[in-house]
Amino acid sequence: MAKDNVLIVVAGPSGVGKGTVCSKVFKHMQDIEFSVSATTRQARKGEKEGVNYFFVSREKFDEMAANDEFLEYADVFGNRYGTPRKYVEEKLNSKRDVLLEIDIQGAMMVMERCPEALFIFILPPSFDELKKRLVKRGSESEEQLAMRLSKAKEEMSYAPKFDYIVVNDDLDSAAIEVISIIVAEKCSVKRNTHFIDGLIKS
Amino acid sequence: MAKDNVLIVVAGPSGVGKGTVCSKVFKHMQDIEFSVSATTRQARKGEKEGVNYFFVSREKFDEMAANDEFLEYADVFGNRYGTPRKYVEEKLNSKRDVLLEIDIQGAMMVMERCPEALFIFILPPSFDELKKRLVKRGSESEEQLAMRLSKAKEEMSYAPKFDYIVVNDDLDSAAIEVISIIVAEKCSVKRNTHFIDGLIKS
Repeated sequence: MAKDNVLIVVAGPSGVGKGTVCSKVFKHMQDIEFSVSATTRQARKGEKEGVNYFFVSREKFDEMAANDEFLEYADVFGNRYGTPRKYVEEKLNSKRDVLLEIDIQGAMMVMERCPEALFIFILPPSFDELKKRLVKRGSESEEQLAMRLSKAKEEMSYAPKFDYIVVNDDLDSAAIEVISIIVAEKCSVKRNTHFIDGLIKS
Repeated sequence: MAKDNVLIVVAGPSGVGKGTVCSKVFKHMQDIEFSVSATTRQARKGEKEGVNYFFVSREKFDEMAANDEFLEYADVFGNRYGTPRKYVEEKLNSKRDVLLEIDIQGAMMVMERCPEALFIFILPPSFDELKKRLVKRGSESEEQLAMRLSKAKEEMSYAPKFDYIVVNDDLDSAAIEVISIIVAEKCSVKRNTHFIDGLIKS
């Protein structure tokens, strides 16, 4: 049956593992289009231009923001991240679901502009576990780590504004939960009014 | 994580295959408790007392209804079906999710009494397909068949009052969709307020 396309927003505090969860989701749901963000931060080891991010200069980013070319953008620890609006709209119009893996700031902007999107908040099993993961990643200084943790605490208070929470305790379970949420969303009555009307009138 | 228990209501018109879908769901989600209804209708071939239904006399049924012992009950083509309230409450209190596979009349009663339940409407891919399935089942007379079809048409107009629709075109897909809806529901923010509060305060 024809189902409405969904803009899926997966957000969570830094270090919660939302990128890893989303990669796993993608493996099982290849029909979903992953949005590629633009960023001013430097590429981490293994990250590829146009696959993980579009790496752009600060000047280019600000020009795009001024031209209202982003669905959302945010400053995260001095680096900027943004979702190209045109890219997302094209995919949704061409009958694809689009997944945005973004930070909380960005998700809140999308919530204002596209309240009909599906909002999933990835949470750590505990605050201590989040700290462990950030330390293990080892890409931040002591000061950056403290800043991220304080920020994460504040960000978690936004979870009740989302539609769903997924606790990233076990990676496989978290991915299955995100997949289930997407499958369920496409069965929701609110996204199938045309189909139901057609069936009743048939 | 501790998640709130859910009362899951799966309903659909006669002949849509909701029983077959629910059996498939049960195979994959053995943690879920299937509610056993009381009915005054005669057992079909293969149906077992206490497993598929509690087969009771009309007198016993009416006595239970008068004593408010049913969460819902309905008269379906001259036979009565009811969900024992005590059975469902005990299971929910003992930390089990409970699934009710009932007709639309019954679902509408549960919607009034337990609006916090999860309501899933099983739809046929088309009205013609529903007709084919009822004919194939061959357990009804011509007159009964016409009555069921007319009733199904009326019942489908209640679909928009439910939370989700699942089209039973392919049995496996339908079962996966029901399972996904249940998994998603348990991740919904509204069913996890205690967990979120605890995490923010930790």
